[in-house]
Amino acid sequence: MRAIEIAKPGGPEVLEWREAPEPRVERGDVLIDVTASAVNRADVLQRQGFYDPPPGASPYPGLEVSGVVAEVGADVEQFKPGDEVCALLGGGGYAERVAVPWQQVMPVPDRVSLREAAALPEVACTVWSNVFMIGRLRRGETLLVHGGASGIGTFAVQLAKALGSYVVTTVGSAAKGERVRELGADEVINYREEDFAEKAHADVILDIMGAKYLAGNVRALKTGGRLVIIGLQGGLKAELNLGVLLGKRAAIHATTLRARPVDEKGVIVRSVVDNVWPLIGAGAVSPVVYAEVPMSEAAEAHRMLDSGEHVGKILLVR
Amino acid sequence: MRAIEIAKPGGPEVLEWREAPEPRVERGDVLIDVTASAVNRADVLQRQGFYDPPPGASPYPGLEVSGVVAEVGADVEQFKPGDEVCALLGGGGYAERVAVPWQQVMPVPDRVSLREAAALPEVACTVWSNVFMIGRLRRGETLLVHGGASGIGTFAVQLAKALGSYVVTTVGSAAKGERVRELGADEVINYREEDFAEKAHADVILDIMGAKYLAGNVRALKTGGRLVIIGLQGGLKAELNLGVLLGKRAAIHATTLRARPVDEKGVIVRSVVDNVWPLIGAGAVSPVVYAEVPMSEAAEAHRMLDSGEHVGKILLVR
Repeated sequence: MRAIEIAKPGGPEVLEWREAPEPRVERGDVLIDVTASAVNRADVLQRQGFYDPPPGASPYPGLEVSGVVAEVGADVEQFKPGDEVCALLGGGGYAERVAVPWQQVMPVPDRVSLREAAALPEVACTVWSNVFMIGRLRRGETLLVHGGASGIGTFAVQLAKALGSYVVTTVGSAAKGERVRELGADEVINYREEDFAEKAHADVILDIMGAKYLAGNVRALKTGGRLVIIGLQGGLKAELNLGVLLGKRAAIHATTLRARPVDEKGVIVRSVVDNVWPLIGAGAVSPVVYAEVPMSEAAEAHRMLDSGEHVGKILLVR
Repeated sequence: MRAIEIAKPGGPEVLEWREAPEPRVERGDVLIDVTASAVNRADVLQRQGFYDPPPGASPYPGLEVSGVVAEVGADVEQFKPGDEVCALLGGGGYAERVAVPWQQVMPVPDRVSLREAAALPEVACTVWSNVFMIGRLRRGETLLVHGGASGIGTFAVQLAKALGSYVVTTVGSAAKGERVRELGADEVINYREEDFAEKAHADVILDIMGAKYLAGNVRALKTGGRLVIIGLQGGLKAELNLGVLLGKRAAIHATTLRARPVDEKGVIVRSVVDNVWPLIGAGAVSPVVYAEVPMSEAAEAHRMLDSGEHVGKILLVR
């Protein structure tokens, strides 16, 4: 088969479409003939050499795919060859085929094409696990999601609205602001013009900036609020005022999906299929696809992500 | 009636046993004829002028009492005059009588004298709500509790052991170490001689030090660990390494019991009666009383707490 290899750490140009060994199918694995994958920030970090795949994961980038089941391991009863599926991966999505533990495989939800389904696993599992399973966002509460125009942002806005929350989000341009309002955001803050920490008061905050936003996020939390940090794009270390946190009886969670063991991913995946897929099937939440790029031109897709102009997900299609 | 008034912010000598107005009994209140109260660190902070009672609370110190119900408000059906009870208070326990919302009143558990019951409300509600309801300590997991010889510490060690956890605790002397081992601690770390952050690896940490221990506590957390900060004796502000927290998929909760609204206290109190009282009734967990001091001599009890020699609770008895 062919796959995108990272020739050496560097810019988008290091991504090369090359002949690669077929994936090994373990007893609990599903082998997927890939229809599409999607680009994540983590893929860029991996390309740059800052984010090695977890032990045992494929060396090729790509944290999600959609496609058709080609083969299943001896222990797999949940899927069979020919099934149309999508999957959350530890890596290896930028390839013609990928093997993945069955626990991380999901059916394609109703109303979504097989190709579009590649836009869902990472954002659905990330948003559901962090905002709802960890952050426990409840109906009537306020969610603040940073980067509302990102893949995660566009999904979080829709899902939180569909489940009855008030949604505040930050964006970097007026055009993106309009787009996330269309997706259901109640308030949009342009972080280039306004201080979100002064304007937003949230029960749950989904954050990707880490250190740079820590003080502002804690300030924006309501009493009993939960800050869930899933990215550190603004650095690792910051001063924390525990007096403010304690006065609000608030919590800070910092977590990541990719490094979780298969069993934990399986719990999340099943919860997503039970809770999120029906909302997609009902049309309340939809994948937001910004562009479809041939997988062999993954470098172009990475340039697109780096430019920051996109709203939603960039797909890699075969 | 008489109560301990704080004549002005200062040392133990500012605590004066004086004539005071009778408490006002609201429709949802229980008036308790106080048998005993107990000393908490928060009372010392209040005496020093650093911790004002929450709005609506009594100006007198004292966060817990035991005693006999003298009167109930028109809306109270759960208790009647003559009932032997103990209660979690927003303040006012250092007095002959105190009025408290019925939601914060509990029966005296089996095996415990009415007097000893004054040692239970704060520690039971604090440990149960923070270690179990917020920290979600599970059977087989490890708890690290700082200050194992304190009122909270002695209770946390016993309760976590009774519920099947491995318990590590810090103490300041060998004598205290022996005592907490008798209470069930599996590992004891003398913080004057050893670095707890090197030795302990915990799923849940119950902390009272705040800033001073933040880095060490985060270091001591296992993957998926929960740090619950309920005191800031070591300061408010510290650097937090979010990279370490995220790598461990860990959480920091900072919270306080006293400032919670009555309804939230009520949820905790009922959960304590359901889950903790039976363990006390079975003899698996017992109040640890270090000394009983006449309430009129509260100043002496505060000097005792300040000395740091005590193990367990110091009661104020009438």
